[in-house]
Amino acid sequence: MLPRQFQNLIKHFTKFPSIGSRQATRFVFHLLRQPNDQFTDFINELARLKNEIKICPNCFFIFDSFNSVQDKKNGKENKICQFCSDPKRNQNIICIVEKEADILAIEKTGHYDGTYHILGGNIYTLTEESENFILKNLKNRLEKSTGKNIELILALNPTPEGDATASFISRELKNPNIKITRLARGLQRGADVEYADHETLTHAIKNRQ
Amino acid sequence: MLPRQFQNLIKHFTKFPSIGSRQATRFVFHLLRQPNDQFTDFINELARLKNEIKICPNCFFIFDSFNSVQDKKNGKENKICQFCSDPKRNQNIICIVEKEADILAIEKTGHYDGTYHILGGNIYTLTEESENFILKNLKNRLEKSTGKNIELILALNPTPEGDATASFISRELKNPNIKITRLARGLQRGADVEYADHETLTHAIKNRQ
Repeated sequence: MLPRQFQNLIKHFTKFPSIGSRQATRFVFHLLRQPNDQFTDFINELARLKNEIKICPNCFFIFDSFNSVQDKKNGKENKICQFCSDPKRNQNIICIVEKEADILAIEKTGHYDGTYHILGGNIYTLTEESENFILKNLKNRLEKSTGKNIELILALNPTPEGDATASFISRELKNPNIKITRLARGLQRGADVEYADHETLTHAIKNRQ
Repeated sequence: MLPRQFQNLIKHFTKFPSIGSRQATRFVFHLLRQPNDQFTDFINELARLKNEIKICPNCFFIFDSFNSVQDKKNGKENKICQFCSDPKRNQNIICIVEKEADILAIEKTGHYDGTYHILGGNIYTLTEESENFILKNLKNRLEKSTGKNIELILALNPTPEGDATASFISRELKNPNIKITRLARGLQRGADVEYADHETLTHAIKNRQ
């Protein structure tokens, strides 16, 4: 009953994370009712997304390949992201995260000045192929800095999946020149000791400061 | 920290119904990771949405203005929707709904062969301007069919907002030639009489069949 173009768009939106067909339908109606200038702006921004935003070959974070319109005119393109290219950041500290949003959360603390490395998942969600690709890439990155004191911070979730991924990486990258650490575990701000789970409380006692 | 284009797109997605900034961010990452052909297809479908899908000037439902590629080549454009142009549907029965999705639900029952009229909201969400526009439009539509037996079915939600809207329309369109009805109220399938709310049960008893 709905026009074919409409249904095609619904299909696209149902591929979005956590979107079902009912909400996808609401999205398309929303777009259809949007003023023309806003709608055109949306399409233009989308078109620019893949053309101008690149993925850093070093750490896999995203970056704007052209800093300014002038750079774009001159064809002066950035090759790596803001973290990997920043001389003020310690390039010998690499924080390994599962996904981009984890980097945003860590940056918000304002207490980290090293670099990052995005895995794109954990060892349960990654295929063997992507696992090998990530390991090869990490090893290459570490080899380039041989001789220096490297610290790898495994900023993975304190879940069975995160723990397994951390063990796997620690084992694969074992090397006397590399210090491997993990984020501290303990009570969350506002938590109640009485209701803290067994594992969290154990960590909080053992690693008391 | 996120590229400007990326942030612009997040802003667009936060305007989507029930989407916050966190989910909007996930949407943009999703699009960025999508294979190029799927992404291009998505943009093309979006561009076609506003060009090819029109809103019926009679009932405000959407329709494909070109039935086929051939029609498009010949410039043979549809002017009204499938319901308003269908000779098999009873054009003297008009079902008034709040939004498009209500039509989809009613059509699914397979037990309605009249036409529709979309209000685009209820009297609490509509502006005075859009209210006047809707009334004028409905009156025009009814005038065109003068002399015939018209039935207006108010298929509005059984909520205070829906009830107020129904009263308003009934009052404004009062006319001896127009029969105004509302959807029956009563117990839902699978409901428990013990737990039915007072109003539903009152309706179910009064209108027992």
